[in-house]
Amino acid sequence: MPQKRLLTPGPTQVPEPARLAMARQVTHHRTAEFRALLAQVLADLKVVFATENDVLVLTSSGTGAMEAAVVNLVPRGGKAIVLESGVFSRRWADICVRYGIEVVRHSVPWGQAIEADDVARVLSDHPDAVAVFGTLMESSTGVGHDVEAIGQVVAESNALWVVDGISGAGAMRCLVDAWHIDVLVVGSQKALMTPPGLAMMAVSAAAWQQMERFEPPAFYFDLKLHRKKILGTKPLEGPDTPWTPAHTLIAGLAESLKLIRAEGMEAVWARCDMLSRATIAGIEAMGLAPFAARRAAGMTAVRVPPGMEASALLKRLEARFGVKLAGGQLELSGKIIRIAHFGVIDELEIIATLAAIEMVLDELGYPVRLGSAAAAASRVMQSSVRSRGAVAHGAAAT
Amino acid sequence: MPQKRLLTPGPTQVPEPARLAMARQVTHHRTAEFRALLAQVLADLKVVFATENDVLVLTSSGTGAMEAAVVNLVPRGGKAIVLESGVFSRRWADICVRYGIEVVRHSVPWGQAIEADDVARVLSDHPDAVAVFGTLMESSTGVGHDVEAIGQVVAESNALWVVDGISGAGAMRCLVDAWHIDVLVVGSQKALMTPPGLAMMAVSAAAWQQMERFEPPAFYFDLKLHRKKILGTKPLEGPDTPWTPAHTLIAGLAESLKLIRAEGMEAVWARCDMLSRATIAGIEAMGLAPFAARRAAGMTAVRVPPGMEASALLKRLEARFGVKLAGGQLELSGKIIRIAHFGVIDELEIIATLAAIEMVLDELGYPVRLGSAAAAASRVMQSSVRSRGAVAHGAAAT
Repeated sequence: MPQKRLLTPGPTQVPEPARLAMARQVTHHRTAEFRALLAQVLADLKVVFATENDVLVLTSSGTGAMEAAVVNLVPRGGKAIVLESGVFSRRWADICVRYGIEVVRHSVPWGQAIEADDVARVLSDHPDAVAVFGTLMESSTGVGHDVEAIGQVVAESNALWVVDGISGAGAMRCLVDAWHIDVLVVGSQKALMTPPGLAMMAVSAAAWQQMERFEPPAFYFDLKLHRKKILGTKPLEGPDTPWTPAHTLIAGLAESLKLIRAEGMEAVWARCDMLSRATIAGIEAMGLAPFAARRAAGMTAVRVPPGMEASALLKRLEARFGVKLAGGQLELSGKIIRIAHFGVIDELEIIATLAAIEMVLDELGYPVRLGSAAAAASRVMQSSVRSRGAVAHGAAAT
Repeated sequence: MPQKRLLTPGPTQVPEPARLAMARQVTHHRTAEFRALLAQVLADLKVVFATENDVLVLTSSGTGAMEAAVVNLVPRGGKAIVLESGVFSRRWADICVRYGIEVVRHSVPWGQAIEADDVARVLSDHPDAVAVFGTLMESSTGVGHDVEAIGQVVAESNALWVVDGISGAGAMRCLVDAWHIDVLVVGSQKALMTPPGLAMMAVSAAAWQQMERFEPPAFYFDLKLHRKKILGTKPLEGPDTPWTPAHTLIAGLAESLKLIRAEGMEAVWARCDMLSRATIAGIEAMGLAPFAARRAAGMTAVRVPPGMEASALLKRLEARFGVKLAGGQLELSGKIIRIAHFGVIDELEIIATLAAIEMVLDELGYPVRLGSAAAAASRVMQSSVRSRGAVAHGAAAT
């Protein structure tokens, strides 16, 4: 039986130190020990998100934190611009509609990326918009957005820039402060290598100011209650949470963050980016094409060849090789497969996965030259290592 | 250094099989394997809650599920009766107020229990109340409520009976169907012996009917979305969740539920009830008194002797014996200590805890006769065993 290899764009594999931390006997959470743990986690998250803003940890999926962003920022009857390019960015609109918020949708065909110039146009048409809701990595299509350029445009308006970085943050470069992101929403089970159950938010001073203007239709997700506890009731007490947190998951997150910090953010982003380029080179060597018009460092969506069933491809990958990839969602069902290359995923995992896809394509009668994907991906990896000077260093050491 | 012994009314210790299950490598949750796991968990929860109603698992703390109950059942401007007897039952009112619900508070002094006759009177004064919100075990005071008698009264009205069983269910007898409970809310980190992060709900047909009448101010906590997924999109697919679930915690819960099922609900309830009686006998033997007018099988709140600082007592218990108990909250701070006797807690853990309290009282200069608590608790335990015939059985086998 093959080893299980999980390469879906969430959940992702969790490193052993995190898994063992979550197996420890449960302790109480209203203690100095938990406050110290949470303080460390929040400090590490600030580094990962490149921010000095307040960071919160909620016990919910990423969707819960998306809802928290919406209901705390935009009052009923207020206006929001939603940048819609796939399943997950559409969810911003669904949440807004549920709360009686006027939604201005700027949509692009799935697989395309939102352009900053278009956002500028929408903003000038709607100067009364309270917030612009967008997506870093639209994991339903594999598109990585230019959150920096859009952030620049939004910063010139009165609106707040709210980014779903649930699957992208920690994989793609995402500089909250430099890119004028007022609220970033992140999930635990993606690049942060922790099981699902936690959502992280980075909240700017401008966003807190907006939240002071009204009482949100929220209780569990009332972010002002969270902020009060994060700041600590007494100065020396350290941060806390308003409701009982999933603290074993936070203990796991702390371990995964240690690994991320040890690698360094620049190195993590460079690795994911290199794996993205290697993956695309590999699939192109098989004659396949990426689906996204603008690639995301954290994952690649691949068009399934005409006449081939995506489900057959995915099932054989899992049955023979233990490789679990994701298929397409909603209207992309059957049309794409999705490969994650963030979190614990390394060079050899991508080489192995590409080889598995190639062999299954061969099984299914699709013409491939065996080894071509590994060759193409390896060349990207070697070129990347050479450009970092690591090979030269290795040669000198021998 | 002493062993750590956690006897707080949540979180509670998690058995090893559950902890090891949560340390396993993460797998994907949109799979037949996860659906089978969730189906088993839901089936087991129905046994624990003694119900044929739909059971849901949310990824949130218990407070999130309380909010879900409120916002899905009572529309803005609707009327709700809140039975307030402590910190947690007060939360029902706080949530209702946040959502513009008219709250009729029936309050008793903390430590007292709500009486069914009084609920009947309030209901006859407010026949237009949509729901009555109450509490099984008010863990801030240690009161166990007569949910059966109140349920009988509510069943004769037009209102729905909504019970916070967050800490009580799984420890105290609580028969959802027989006691006319329309919505029961339960937390993972109490008697169900799982880390925090999951909340369970049992929802009656009448509650679903009420939910059909309006669209709730909710998205993540929209229970109709949860129900649709629990019922399965295709008949043979099994249950699912609308948002990414904290599925490693669900895997842990599955293991703890196996242990609960193996012991049997009657046996679990009888054990907790016996430990409650033993704990009270022990503290009374030390000259202390329980705080609650009506005891709860899951925990005991103990009045701290006049002149003694609760924090000193708690700190010494932890420093010398590793015993972690809870203190009082809000206006009960410094006045009580709280001892849980649910979940993995067994006879010897209670004997040990009582002995620890006795020795610390002695240290603090409070007059105790060493061993008196253990003697009193042991007598309750022996009497309980004798009445079950287990000693006789043991004697016959020798």
